[in-house]
Amino acid sequence: MNKLSTKHFIGLENATEKDINLIIETALTFREILDRPIKKVPSLKGINIVNLFFENSTRTKLSFELAEKRLSADVLNFSGSSSSLNKGETFRDTVQNIQAMKIDCAVMRHPIPGSCKQLTRYLDCPIVNAGDGTHEHPTQAMLDITTIFEKFGRVKDLKVAIVGDILHSRVAMSNIFGLQKLGAEVMLCSPPHLIPKYIQQFNVKISHSIDEALQWADVVNILRIQRERMGIGLIPSVREYRNLFGVTKDRLKNLDKELVIMHPGPINRGVEVDSYVADSDQSVILNQVLNGVAVRMSILYLLLGANNNEN
Amino acid sequence: MNKLSTKHFIGLENATEKDINLIIETALTFREILDRPIKKVPSLKGINIVNLFFENSTRTKLSFELAEKRLSADVLNFSGSSSSLNKGETFRDTVQNIQAMKIDCAVMRHPIPGSCKQLTRYLDCPIVNAGDGTHEHPTQAMLDITTIFEKFGRVKDLKVAIVGDILHSRVAMSNIFGLQKLGAEVMLCSPPHLIPKYIQQFNVKISHSIDEALQWADVVNILRIQRERMGIGLIPSVREYRNLFGVTKDRLKNLDKELVIMHPGPINRGVEVDSYVADSDQSVILNQVLNGVAVRMSILYLLLGANNNEN
Amino acid sequence: MNKLSTKHFIGLENATEKDINLIIETALTFREILDRPIKKVPSLKGINIVNLFFENSTRTKLSFELAEKRLSADVLNFSGSSSSLNKGETFRDTVQNIQAMKIDCAVMRHPIPGSCKQLTRYLDCPIVNAGDGTHEHPTQAMLDITTIFEKFGRVKDLKVAIVGDILHSRVAMSNIFGLQKLGAEVMLCSPPHLIPKYIQQFNVKISHSIDEALQWADVVNILRIQRERMGIGLIPSVREYRNLFGVTKDRLKNLDKELVIMHPGPINRGVEVDSYVADSDQSVILNQVLNGVAVRMSILYLLLGANNNEN
Repeated sequence: MNKLSTKHFIGLENATEKDINLIIETALTFREILDRPIKKVPSLKGINIVNLFFENSTRTKLSFELAEKRLSADVLNFSGSSSSLNKGETFRDTVQNIQAMKIDCAVMRHPIPGSCKQLTRYLDCPIVNAGDGTHEHPTQAMLDITTIFEKFGRVKDLKVAIVGDILHSRVAMSNIFGLQKLGAEVMLCSPPHLIPKYIQQFNVKISHSIDEALQWADVVNILRIQRERMGIGLIPSVREYRNLFGVTKDRLKNLDKELVIMHPGPINRGVEVDSYVADSDQSVILNQVLNGVAVRMSILYLLLGANNNEN
Repeated sequence: MNKLSTKHFIGLENATEKDINLIIETALTFREILDRPIKKVPSLKGINIVNLFFENSTRTKLSFELAEKRLSADVLNFSGSSSSLNKGETFRDTVQNIQAMKIDCAVMRHPIPGSCKQLTRYLDCPIVNAGDGTHEHPTQAMLDITTIFEKFGRVKDLKVAIVGDILHSRVAMSNIFGLQKLGAEVMLCSPPHLIPKYIQQFNVKISHSIDEALQWADVVNILRIQRERMGIGLIPSVREYRNLFGVTKDRLKNLDKELVIMHPGPINRGVEVDSYVADSDQSVILNQVLNGVAVRMSILYLLLGANNNEN
Repeated sequence: MNKLSTKHFIGLENATEKDINLIIETALTFREILDRPIKKVPSLKGINIVNLFFENSTRTKLSFELAEKRLSADVLNFSGSSSSLNKGETFRDTVQNIQAMKIDCAVMRHPIPGSCKQLTRYLDCPIVNAGDGTHEHPTQAMLDITTIFEKFGRVKDLKVAIVGDILHSRVAMSNIFGLQKLGAEVMLCSPPHLIPKYIQQFNVKISHSIDEALQWADVVNILRIQRERMGIGLIPSVREYRNLFGVTKDRLKNLDKELVIMHPGPINRGVEVDSYVADSDQSVILNQVLNGVAVRMSILYLLLGANNNEN
């Protein structure tokens, strides 16, 4: 059965290994379609998807929209800032109104952790989490994991180091959940105060040395350092962060092995990663972007496609 | 003939009873389609509709866009704030430019009363009024009336109370025109200074007591109290408005009858209506939202669809 | 072969006469389609086009979007201001990310001259210049030239006067290149300091008298005077500009011949052109707008359509 075991796609914390593998497998099928001259399939013809973005986003929104259109869905975009929320309407009223219009699926990004889960109580249709605060960003993790699978043919027993600001990263959390379910080992590498205390329960390695992490890993996933965190105690300066945690040309050359370089984007070149590294043959950063479209097509298809074909 | 008697849909003041009934009847047909898994019909395939929104709107715009896409039309969105109007171009030049691109239909919301009528002098294509200042909001009234018809199987001889700020409400005006043409009785209930003097010519009942209105009515349509009107003399405070005119749980429970509750949204919960009332079985507020899509499909189809099928 | 000789459409400076004629010819075919009730053709079905607008635009963006949708392409809109560029990402990273999603074509407007050329080094897909700073605006020039061809049945040996702020006008530059390649004579008419010195190499006539220009020309293309240039030395005042260079009713009536009036819009009525002139029978301003859609359909079709049909 080409269906997920859950109605919604909210996070990887509670996802099954079987569902994760089904998403990867289906994504790689769509990945092949994306190499064809015509990249569009009729799977979701006549289906309405609304993208509810209560937080700014460029690439995630574009990736979802492209995935939706390539599945032949009809797309509506709704951004929180221009919404009735400004007129004092509650979040619940807004989404129930949208639901009342008989939308078939909602993709939501929202700054509040847990808001997608909350949405499942208000709406009947399948919901896809496009990032809910610091909680999860499961489609990003799925595209990261799919890219690893595409590169190595497996995820099991691989060593994946996630480098950067773990504390504020929904990408890190979703990656930890997903990678571990498929049997990968995860190391987090970060200044001590940028790793949350509760992370120790998740059976991850922790390092505060970038050189140690690079030496250990098969794959390094470099998180974006958000400039708004700098100069306010969390990160003293761009230069110091680069010196201590930047994945630089020199650090890469010092290794006696190949290492796969990942980054969820957008990149701060010269801060968390050098241009030389980001643009090297070892980098799969642009593959991640392409797999992002394929993974989102996969998830939407697995949530909505089977129903659609019944009719 | 599945066509309206007019080329445009500008208001209900001059609409015929026959056209209003045709819109309701066609909307209820589309309403059935909206319960199907695939809610899209090919009626307006190849037709271009431009949504000209010179005033902020979320739900009306979303509702129109969904209606247009479900009719398979191609949709272009144009919002006034990002337009050439900022560069000193006149309204007429802007719309004539859009017309010159051979648009098949324009849906317009504009803050100036009468602007949609004015637009019919500049453009050749059918025009749909999505709200023109304090003048009319005829698609909202049509969805209100369709919801009443759906509930009671008729409109004739029903008693409809419209509660709130009548003075600034295009929704109230369009409802009065439409309801009276179908033989309903209309009562307006509001503080005296929020009912315009000229309203007396329209043969409506006027009450300043919410309890009287609720006792009288079969249907109560509760208008949104706009917070920007508060504290500036028009409405003293949220608390006072709720005390005097709010449709509260207590007021509803004191009635010895069922009453249908409507609200065009967005709701100020705890101001003009209580959550208990808005979410009760007597409320058809979410039906209104769904009928909004069906009514807009109906109107666009009746203006454009017959032409389309000729080819 | 219905294809341009170049992969991209960046400017008219290096375009061949053959390509320019092919664009006109194909545009006039699409022009006929735009007079039909159904104005949509399936040529680019399944093709994704992204509109990258790093600069505000209403009519050019709407015209491209309409052209794309009438060719049945799937359209994604990306505007620079809401982009990751704000997060410190480089232009190159942004566009390569978009490319990585396997976009089939990019239409770009950007404030930096030469940015579209630069984009061809980053992206594999065909690129269309929708205006790059003061460099070129070749689709505007092509619609101007197509409008002239439509009116006269030829371009060769016609006398075209371009009036206004040549210094800051990408429209003027593209027109000069295109018109000369088809054998038209070009005169520039402007205050001396609003004509760039290097223009003399292009074999154009230069005049500082609007009466001389109108007397000489078969066609006058009146550029918009940008209000932001006024009162800062470049243009002393609206009134003075109108007196010296405005195409007024009186000036038009003084001529002993018919003159075709063009303007790329948006018009400053009463500044560079009078309403009487802009709305007269001699004006083809609204034809330009319609031809804009046809020309953009033509260019996109000639870049992408042949490939599409191979599959």
